[in-house]
Amino acid sequence: MRADAIAGPRNEAGLKALLPLLAAQFGSRFQTSEAVRGHHTHTTTYLPRQLPDGVVFVESADDVKAVVRLCATHRVPVIPFGIGSSLEGQVNAPSGGISLDFSGMASVIEVNPDDLDCTVQPGITRESLNAALRDTGLFFPIDPGANATIGGMTSTRASGTNAVRYGTMKDNVLALTVVTANGEEILTAHRARKSSAGYDLTRLFVGAEGTLGVITSVTLRLQGIPDVIAGGTCHFDSIDAACRAVIMTIQLGIPVARIELLDAMQVRACNAYSGLTHPEKPTLFVEFHGSAASVDLQSAEFAAVVAEMGGSPFRWTADASERAQLWKARHNAYYACRALAPELDALTTDVCVPISRFADCVVETQKDIADCGFLAPIVGHAGDGNFHVLVLLDAKNDADVERVEAFVARLNARALSMGGTCTGEHGIGQGKKAFLDAELGGSVGLMRQVKAALDPDNIFNPGKIF
Amino acid sequence: MRADAIAGPRNEAGLKALLPLLAAQFGSRFQTSEAVRGHHTHTTTYLPRQLPDGVVFVESADDVKAVVRLCATHRVPVIPFGIGSSLEGQVNAPSGGISLDFSGMASVIEVNPDDLDCTVQPGITRESLNAALRDTGLFFPIDPGANATIGGMTSTRASGTNAVRYGTMKDNVLALTVVTANGEEILTAHRARKSSAGYDLTRLFVGAEGTLGVITSVTLRLQGIPDVIAGGTCHFDSIDAACRAVIMTIQLGIPVARIELLDAMQVRACNAYSGLTHPEKPTLFVEFHGSAASVDLQSAEFAAVVAEMGGSPFRWTADASERAQLWKARHNAYYACRALAPELDALTTDVCVPISRFADCVVETQKDIADCGFLAPIVGHAGDGNFHVLVLLDAKNDADVERVEAFVARLNARALSMGGTCTGEHGIGQGKKAFLDAELGGSVGLMRQVKAALDPDNIFNPGKIF
Repeated sequence: MRADAIAGPRNEAGLKALLPLLAAQFGSRFQTSEAVRGHHTHTTTYLPRQLPDGVVFVESADDVKAVVRLCATHRVPVIPFGIGSSLEGQVNAPSGGISLDFSGMASVIEVNPDDLDCTVQPGITRESLNAALRDTGLFFPIDPGANATIGGMTSTRASGTNAVRYGTMKDNVLALTVVTANGEEILTAHRARKSSAGYDLTRLFVGAEGTLGVITSVTLRLQGIPDVIAGGTCHFDSIDAACRAVIMTIQLGIPVARIELLDAMQVRACNAYSGLTHPEKPTLFVEFHGSAASVDLQSAEFAAVVAEMGGSPFRWTADASERAQLWKARHNAYYACRALAPELDALTTDVCVPISRFADCVVETQKDIADCGFLAPIVGHAGDGNFHVLVLLDAKNDADVERVEAFVARLNARALSMGGTCTGEHGIGQGKKAFLDAELGGSVGLMRQVKAALDPDNIFNPGKIF
Repeated sequence: MRADAIAGPRNEAGLKALLPLLAAQFGSRFQTSEAVRGHHTHTTTYLPRQLPDGVVFVESADDVKAVVRLCATHRVPVIPFGIGSSLEGQVNAPSGGISLDFSGMASVIEVNPDDLDCTVQPGITRESLNAALRDTGLFFPIDPGANATIGGMTSTRASGTNAVRYGTMKDNVLALTVVTANGEEILTAHRARKSSAGYDLTRLFVGAEGTLGVITSVTLRLQGIPDVIAGGTCHFDSIDAACRAVIMTIQLGIPVARIELLDAMQVRACNAYSGLTHPEKPTLFVEFHGSAASVDLQSAEFAAVVAEMGGSPFRWTADASERAQLWKARHNAYYACRALAPELDALTTDVCVPISRFADCVVETQKDIADCGFLAPIVGHAGDGNFHVLVLLDAKNDADVERVEAFVARLNARALSMGGTCTGEHGIGQGKKAFLDAELGGSVGLMRQVKAALDPDNIFNPGKIF
């Protein structure tokens, strides 16, 4: 996608008035150098960068309120920035504006071990949170791969490898504080595990990609660290057999914690990158969480499913280092893909379909990739019917970009035709705006009504989702 | 609460113009007799009835669209009616208007066994749905006690006994179709297990109590019927010990399917009603779902927790009729309460607190009940920190009503002071409007903005939530 295709209008007069005010209020915590502004559009997307006009390094909700009030007065965009791991251009500034850097709001505010919850500032990363939780015997399970911030994960409704067991951010955020368009901070819910008190504003802000307000704290559900974590792999002669093993696993209610599919091209890439010797066939990587007895039971039940579907014998272990070795291919999948052609750029896209159509969607997509001659391995969160294609391309070659974008359009149409969605976990951002209308039609009008009601001057992350 | 305290303005001119149009369009499917109108405010609440001006027996989404368009044109309220089991006045018509009876929209539209989902019309009850699903090996788990409709359960964000294992309606609705204020039907999502495509309109309508639109179909997640269902009971010398057993069970990650607390007064009522001989002590009723081996394991782990907390030996069985016998007291709890004083009315209320405060909240509430001299047993969905108090009162005696409402106000304040919510599963309706502001403050303003944006003429179930 070319920069001009995703550019928006700039309010030059508002910006001219605003920047000196931010400099006066925030001093060295307000930065306008090109290097700093450029860093705040750094993402893993192939989309062109669109720099903000300045970056405020916020340290408190009061800072956020102050910036939002100033930006509202001068009608200048506000773009929250976590760590820059979003994939669909969520932190670009197509109309310019002010990036809010949350690295100074990265603390754990409180942990309530008896209630299995905690409240954090949005700038904390999931790995830092889990490090801070270690002594409590609890952990935060959602793992999108990247060491993303909790605020960013909340805003994109992230999920990842173990959503099949623990759900997505939608299921694991109990409450939020959010600075709204009038510069006030609201609390969307308290810490009770469930509530029927009014509209579910928590879920309205989860996945809103910063377009309705700026999140200033997140209350999360936590899980007990399992006594035992067991993992293993098995391979199949066809994608279809691998997917049918997944469907049966889910239908039998085996509480698998992760069940990941790598296609043959992805396994080949991983073998080359990490010096592994996995058979270059569709492969499932599986993990079980529980007591020793429970994990034994789950593994035996899963092994029976694999045998019934004609897979290779299921090898698994509860030994942490052996498990890490078995799972190494999965963990390095992204880097292994990039290593296939280090000189190229990468477009990572995701779709999600009802699980019964997972095999169809993957097989048809593989055929499309082969027809195009792309280097484009597939990794899937199979238990949810969600998969990623990483397409290697030269982002500076317009023809190359057009061919890949046409492939993505076909992939999304394929997922929609199977009852699926154009994004299971990456969000709409800039990259998937064209597909949202195709997917939800009249509902997008309702979303626009909500956006207009809560952000009448369109200051919150404009140019995203719509 | 007296009728005048919950009455709203009536648009007499609009009603006068509308009623003949509905009669002309719907013939005998439009009813205005007092008996029919009265039936459509029948609920299990103590609140006074407020009759609609007419009832349309809808049979299709087109019927719903037609009624909404006519009501929008004439600015007359639209009040969806499922089966009348709501508890906070959700189906009352404080400003008059048209009740939509969904008994003629009670079909299963499709079942997708491979995807563990189904789509139904909103008028189907959960028991009818489960009867229809029986041959598929799947079931819909949410069980609020009453045989409520799926539309009603969606609109109140219902949950019940097994939410501790399977979540609430928020977690089990995949997608909705909804008729909005312009009379158009929108689809909020497709059937993929997860999506990050735009705002989560599904969750916005779940729990909106019919104030944002009228639901015309619901797509639900289903679960495999467990191979084995095991159940049992145990009692404790104190509420505190019973609650600590629950906390430990949750913290250990034992995947209990139901864990219900009955206080001593409730056990006494159940013994009297059903001729049982449970020790009249705080008692836990527990259920496990899984394979035979998994259920054995869970039961043994739970028995160890009970022993550590000084409870009675945990008696359990996987035999269906023995389990039904063990659970009989829990199943009849409501009727047993009513039988304590059949001449009185009942107010059923619910609060939900973080589980670490569950014991405190129940103990303080018991003391309050004793100080008031109420007949008011407690039943709790302990695993979620959610409990109900059923207070017997004479609803025609204003002084009695005032004393009970003061008790409910103290109960809600107590739950809020412990980080909880004024309603875990019944919703706000008319009965809890006063407490929503105390609970969520500034967020209520945001909810009002959403309401005004999506229902500018306030035709959808006015006088509820706000």
